[in-house]
Amino acid sequence: MALGEFDLIDQFFKFPNDSDWKSQGIGDDCALIELDDRVLAVTADMMAITTHFLPDADPETVGYKALAVNLSDLAAAGAKPQAFFLSISMPEIDEAWLAGFSKGLKTLAQQSRCSLLGGDTTRSALVGATRSPTTIAITAMGELPKGQGLTRRGAQVGDDIWVSGTLGDAYTGLKHRWGHWQVPGEDAPYFYARMDRPTPRYLLGQHIRPYASAAADVSDGFMADLGHILERSAKGARIELNQMPCSAALARLPAKYQQEAMLYGGDDYELIFTSASIHREKLLEIAKALGEKITCVGRIQSAHVGDYAPEVWQGATRLSLGKQGFDHFKESSC
Amino acid sequence: MALGEFDLIDQFFKFPNDSDWKSQGIGDDCALIELDDRVLAVTADMMAITTHFLPDADPETVGYKALAVNLSDLAAAGAKPQAFFLSISMPEIDEAWLAGFSKGLKTLAQQSRCSLLGGDTTRSALVGATRSPTTIAITAMGELPKGQGLTRRGAQVGDDIWVSGTLGDAYTGLKHRWGHWQVPGEDAPYFYARMDRPTPRYLLGQHIRPYASAAADVSDGFMADLGHILERSAKGARIELNQMPCSAALARLPAKYQQEAMLYGGDDYELIFTSASIHREKLLEIAKALGEKITCVGRIQSAHVGDYAPEVWQGATRLSLGKQGFDHFKESSC
Repeated sequence: MALGEFDLIDQFFKFPNDSDWKSQGIGDDCALIELDDRVLAVTADMMAITTHFLPDADPETVGYKALAVNLSDLAAAGAKPQAFFLSISMPEIDEAWLAGFSKGLKTLAQQSRCSLLGGDTTRSALVGATRSPTTIAITAMGELPKGQGLTRRGAQVGDDIWVSGTLGDAYTGLKHRWGHWQVPGEDAPYFYARMDRPTPRYLLGQHIRPYASAAADVSDGFMADLGHILERSAKGARIELNQMPCSAALARLPAKYQQEAMLYGGDDYELIFTSASIHREKLLEIAKALGEKITCVGRIQSAHVGDYAPEVWQGATRLSLGKQGFDHFKESSC
Repeated sequence: MALGEFDLIDQFFKFPNDSDWKSQGIGDDCALIELDDRVLAVTADMMAITTHFLPDADPETVGYKALAVNLSDLAAAGAKPQAFFLSISMPEIDEAWLAGFSKGLKTLAQQSRCSLLGGDTTRSALVGATRSPTTIAITAMGELPKGQGLTRRGAQVGDDIWVSGTLGDAYTGLKHRWGHWQVPGEDAPYFYARMDRPTPRYLLGQHIRPYASAAADVSDGFMADLGHILERSAKGARIELNQMPCSAALARLPAKYQQEAMLYGGDDYELIFTSASIHREKLLEIAKALGEKITCVGRIQSAHVGDYAPEVWQGATRLSLGKQGFDHFKESSC
């Protein structure tokens, strides 16, 4: 296809803003809307069975993950989750499927105290005489104190680059499910859990917000999502491959798999954020108090003219890598 | 299928609200969220080509109408439209289709000063090797002064029942398009325009709000949507068929078509609202100043135990009619 998602938005969905509500413009994980007494953070994500989930995906996983990806966007803005709206198109009313979906959704809604306040249900589109699989659209809303909110813009030269959790596990799960990669049998459940039940870092996002200069979540892949921060901040970055957080399970796979998964694998829903190095101790304290892991993986530097691709170094050697990420209009995820 | 939309929500999507944001609960056109200084009104609607639109529907119509139905929900709450979020799944990137869709959407967005602040684009679900038609989910947000906001609950015995515009035109357009009804050739464009380009009454909704006790928009059909007000308000109603607002074009069709279309036809996106009769003159003044038409079609009365179906009278005769409306899981609209 001719256009990627970002071009498509630029070409067809950039309208003038005539409303009383101003936001920072499209291109971040959330729209940040300045009200008089607070900032609203709003994000919308759509997922379809067969495009984002296997046809026989566990409905509980589908419900959980559909909300998780939205909460991860709120986390990247540093917002406190408050409410969500669910629209779902279905080929038929399958009560057993709905019971599972509802259970997964409710689990995470209650855990995050993000309330389901409305939505819509409808019949899915027809292909010939067949109704198409279920499609789910969630719009999630959170809030921030007045004047606050993280975006992809704001990284400064010299800032540390942090990531939460470990990278590449969800991608490894997918590669294993596809039969492309072999993983030790005892590690498969771990990778699948990381793919199916990502942990949105909304508490971490709220707590690091005062110290961070920019943030994004890892949905398209570390290189792509860091690339978005660099592009919007007009900066470059130097990443130390040896510092990238790798799970024990991923560390048991060949080095080339580790590298591919950590740098390019999407769907981790970890946070990437940048912060002045003076805050290093404070950030580690915050993470410790929350029981979260954060790792400094590199540093923001000046950009070469027009080239915001992160440099990746392994010790004293600069690796020759491109920036690439996942685009739903270029390939399918399952 | 076993369940209607309302049962489905009750059974699977009623979760406890643990968030700081409280709303009145699911079952109105909008969720009304009380913040410190204002009320947010939020609504979500999902529409699929082939379920809600003909496979070859004009993309400009699709874009316009997808936003219109959401603005109509904001109108029913009396809210001022502010922002919307668009999620769209598409089989492929069809630039000509997107250009038309974008044009229709933008026209109404600018007219209503409701800004597109974010969203998601993705590939549609697969049926075999075929991508399913485009599905659109919009979440629209508006605002109200603190403590304000219309719901379906609140109609009082003795209140007038008002409707905006005329009823039954969109349904007549659909019946004609299906080939079920013949309409005079010169009237067909009028009915099609009423079906394809409904006029969301968001200005009227904001202005009548201080005088109204309950409101809904006509999406499922007058009897069904008034029925929702009656059920939520635990009241009955007496409707005068001869007072129902009928367009000149609909008046040229047989009386039995007029009756069916005005009482049961969906998709008009007119407002139904109830108001103490003391406000009658004021409401007519407001409508006149806005260039809108409103008609008093009946009165709220006590409910018979457990039976909230409106009584419909034609002069001194009570018609024997059921309450019925449109349910996407019971039949298809196109």
